[in-house]
Amino acid sequence: MLPVVVVHGGAGHVPRTRAELSTAGVCSATRAGYNILKGGGSSMDAVVETVTQLENNPVFNAGCGSVLNVKGEIEMDALVMDGKTLGSGAVSAVRNIANPTQLARLVMDQTSHSCLTAEGASQFARAMGIPEVPLESLITDYSRMRWKENLAPGANPVECQMGKMGTVGAVAVDTEGNIACATSTGGILNKMEGRVGDTPCIGSGGYADNNIGAVSTTGHGEAIMKVTLARLILFHMEQGHSVEAASDLGLAHMKSRVGSLGGVVTVDPQGHWAARFNSLQMAWAAAQKDTLHYGLYTGEHFTQDLDDPH
Amino acid sequence: MLPVVVVHGGAGHVPRTRAELSTAGVCSATRAGYNILKGGGSSMDAVVETVTQLENNPVFNAGCGSVLNVKGEIEMDALVMDGKTLGSGAVSAVRNIANPTQLARLVMDQTSHSCLTAEGASQFARAMGIPEVPLESLITDYSRMRWKENLAPGANPVECQMGKMGTVGAVAVDTEGNIACATSTGGILNKMEGRVGDTPCIGSGGYADNNIGAVSTTGHGEAIMKVTLARLILFHMEQGHSVEAASDLGLAHMKSRVGSLGGVVTVDPQGHWAARFNSLQMAWAAAQKDTLHYGLYTGEHFTQDLDDPH
Repeated sequence: MLPVVVVHGGAGHVPRTRAELSTAGVCSATRAGYNILKGGGSSMDAVVETVTQLENNPVFNAGCGSVLNVKGEIEMDALVMDGKTLGSGAVSAVRNIANPTQLARLVMDQTSHSCLTAEGASQFARAMGIPEVPLESLITDYSRMRWKENLAPGANPVECQMGKMGTVGAVAVDTEGNIACATSTGGILNKMEGRVGDTPCIGSGGYADNNIGAVSTTGHGEAIMKVTLARLILFHMEQGHSVEAASDLGLAHMKSRVGSLGGVVTVDPQGHWAARFNSLQMAWAAAQKDTLHYGLYTGEHFTQDLDDPH
Repeated sequence: MLPVVVVHGGAGHVPRTRAELSTAGVCSATRAGYNILKGGGSSMDAVVETVTQLENNPVFNAGCGSVLNVKGEIEMDALVMDGKTLGSGAVSAVRNIANPTQLARLVMDQTSHSCLTAEGASQFARAMGIPEVPLESLITDYSRMRWKENLAPGANPVECQMGKMGTVGAVAVDTEGNIACATSTGGILNKMEGRVGDTPCIGSGGYADNNIGAVSTTGHGEAIMKVTLARLILFHMEQGHSVEAASDLGLAHMKSRVGSLGGVVTVDPQGHWAARFNSLQMAWAAAQKDTLHYGLYTGEHFTQDLDDPH
């Protein structure tokens, strides 16, 4: 059953024009993560590489392609967590960085802290030799178009928000049984400057514990935080529920208690995995036993031999 | 059993010279919170007023009296949570604000977000008409002395850290059965600029749910986040454990899994309450049925009629 990696490209409503690109993006990132695991790499290496690829893909709301805040700028959040030590690293409201997930990992590995924010995170990035990238290099035409639409008189921010591509994330178990998660996001469209969502908040945007499993979440950050969705699902697993049942219980609780939809990818230490959502869509993929699994709409589950050309 | 308010002034090692001031401070703040509840005020009003008083008291590591970061400056974190809606408000790495908890409440009440950080939080504070205060007004001689000691050659940061006064916080249940929590901190001594701890992280620094109860935590932030201590204790209560047993189980798990000590104040919807810690000391107080309860060392539990002069 091991190794395994499970990846999401955000829950929500994926515009038809971007559906194929989303699926291709998560499948490609999943292959990259799986190759690391197959080569004996750690689950942490695998999830960081997977999410880095999604950050570099302008189709997703993370890294390049992040949504713009109310000022037309980009501030990003990211989290990694190591299920062996329960150590984590996060950055919030970080600017001018191509790969916030890699910076989050450096926070975990190179400091005694778990989260650095805003200018403090930028200072740390400079100290680590991470190059600053121009804001323009992270903004896509699509992001700018949606930002302008949403500022227009008569715009419906809720409608606009529904069209958003969500957060990206991954969970993995390596051949040694170590479990990790990573989550990265540009946040929500037209957010206030300095808004921090669920992603860098441990237990909400993600959680990993070798004794239980790991979860990476996507959806409306403020709702996910209300129910600490990642930790909630793992508590259900501690009570004996399967990865699938626990994920569905967590999502159902978020819907009934705070009226919000979302999605998750979940693994347990044995390598059982789930990609579950109650939003209209979630681009997801998983790789295990040399098979790639993927889907976008509820009930969709395609498979492909990983040795087949792609 | 209702109303009730339970307050902590931080877990750790309280220097002998400050023990009496700590106890007096938490007792006074607890009285203020209880008076609001007795007058029909909400649990949210009570916890915000209680924590505001502790922020204004230079004895505690929150607001005035906060520890200094590595640059000799103050950056503060705070969280409030409303157990009825599960709505929350937080600020992280905020500067030049006397009462971060009041700003956190404005984030909850006046924005669609749950957390604002750093300069974005400052901008919001200005927009809300919150006055900026000079850094110097928040720094005490004691804070500066400890900062300098810790920068000196041969300083033992761990030893110095042990002497810190922790985070402050409160939980309350009002006569309508609504539950709230608030937590506020200056963080850890000589922290990096931009370091965010457990306090503003929902589920770690605090959590409140009318259906379960509320917890406010104190201790080493990075360790508290590893186990999402507040939410963990509430999960134990959902499994049928008492406030006291659930608090002890959560603290014991943090000790065994990540080797760290701390303390919590906990309530359930019926008004059962606990103030528990496995650190050497935690200044705590509670008010219920016109009786004030308080203590500092393990096993200490003094009571006083709230009508008695103080």
